[in-house]
Amino acid sequence: MLLTGAEIDQVAGLLSLREREPFLLCATAVTLAALAENVMFGVLAADLVRRKAIVPATPLVFPGGLQAQLFTVPGKVPLYLEGAEAESATETATNVGVELYAGGARMVYIPGAAGVTAAMKARMKEADVVFFDGTLFRDDEMITTGTGAKTGRRMGHIPIGGEGGSLAALEGISGRRIYVHINNTNPVLLVGSPERAHVERNGWEIAEDGMEIAL
Amino acid sequence: MLLTGAEIDQVAGLLSLREREPFLLCATAVTLAALAENVMFGVLAADLVRRKAIVPATPLVFPGGLQAQLFTVPGKVPLYLEGAEAESATETATNVGVELYAGGARMVYIPGAAGVTAAMKARMKEADVVFFDGTLFRDDEMITTGTGAKTGRRMGHIPIGGEGGSLAALEGISGRRIYVHINNTNPVLLVGSPERAHVERNGWEIAEDGMEIAL
Repeated sequence: MLLTGAEIDQVAGLLSLREREPFLLCATAVTLAALAENVMFGVLAADLVRRKAIVPATPLVFPGGLQAQLFTVPGKVPLYLEGAEAESATETATNVGVELYAGGARMVYIPGAAGVTAAMKARMKEADVVFFDGTLFRDDEMITTGTGAKTGRRMGHIPIGGEGGSLAALEGISGRRIYVHINNTNPVLLVGSPERAHVERNGWEIAEDGMEIAL
Repeated sequence: MLLTGAEIDQVAGLLSLREREPFLLCATAVTLAALAENVMFGVLAADLVRRKAIVPATPLVFPGGLQAQLFTVPGKVPLYLEGAEAESATETATNVGVELYAGGARMVYIPGAAGVTAAMKARMKEADVVFFDGTLFRDDEMITTGTGAKTGRRMGHIPIGGEGGSLAALEGISGRRIYVHINNTNPVLLVGSPERAHVERNGWEIAEDGMEIAL
């Protein structure tokens, strides 16, 4: 199990894996620390679920020849660990992306990103398939739909559309491109919406439950 | 939202309700305290999700005429709050059942029970439908299947079968009887198993996802 952060979306599923099944839990040290500080994750018994701290940019080799590398991505600490004062998005081991490669194929998975750095873009250019943070289409979407008080950027998510959005920032990436981690306010979820058409015209797909990718 | 305890099975679903939807969260004070001590549940923003501590045996009236009462049930503290020394099952506000009544119909829901008290049985005798802890069929089932090191009683769950099991303890209850909270080792989940046949011959049903009960 490889985690990209300790945000609830990334870690709550671990609570469904507490049936004394042995596995290896890999994440950066700061993410493992967030889990260790939360008593509920103690149900992943340490004698069965070994924790392994991963330093970003260190190559990992898994059984079967799968290789991986974590890399830092601009983002926020998990909402539930924020102090009273919101900190601005930074590039630390709190929020990472994953690159996976095997048999000459390469994929990049970035479910949360407050921005796109040159290093991230270079990595994505080399990939056969890219999964990228598609939380919101518009930065103020949760405010205008009355579902929240925060902008996407305040939550550590670059929007898809508009100036400075991910569609524009990721122009020139030629592999298969798929938006993931899509919020329920995001109109790209609606087949036939202008936003979905816009995204598809730009060569992006919208992830679906049960999607399988063969490389 | 009415919780019967702070065990992960009872509370993890709250993490999927953090979309700034206002609701009232009712539980005993000890269960609310367990949530308050866990930073992750802070995502249920206090300005939207009001907490209401319920004293067992106090009648509650909800909008629409639904009435409810929590009542104590022998049980354990949640596994993740256990100390190094396992305490024995006790009857406290840590683990409760729920009685619901409206329009002359009455149901009792007891998803976790280390035993059956006379008061519990009297309550169940008055109910049109009873949902009861069906975690394990045999007390040592997790040990014999190699899926765990603990007996059901050690985890605060009376088994269904055998001497002192819930089938025997709940003889004489005449309403509709449905086992819930069934562990994946429990053979009653298998249609056609002798254990399932035994349970059904005794007038019990096995709950299923999506089950609806009309009273």
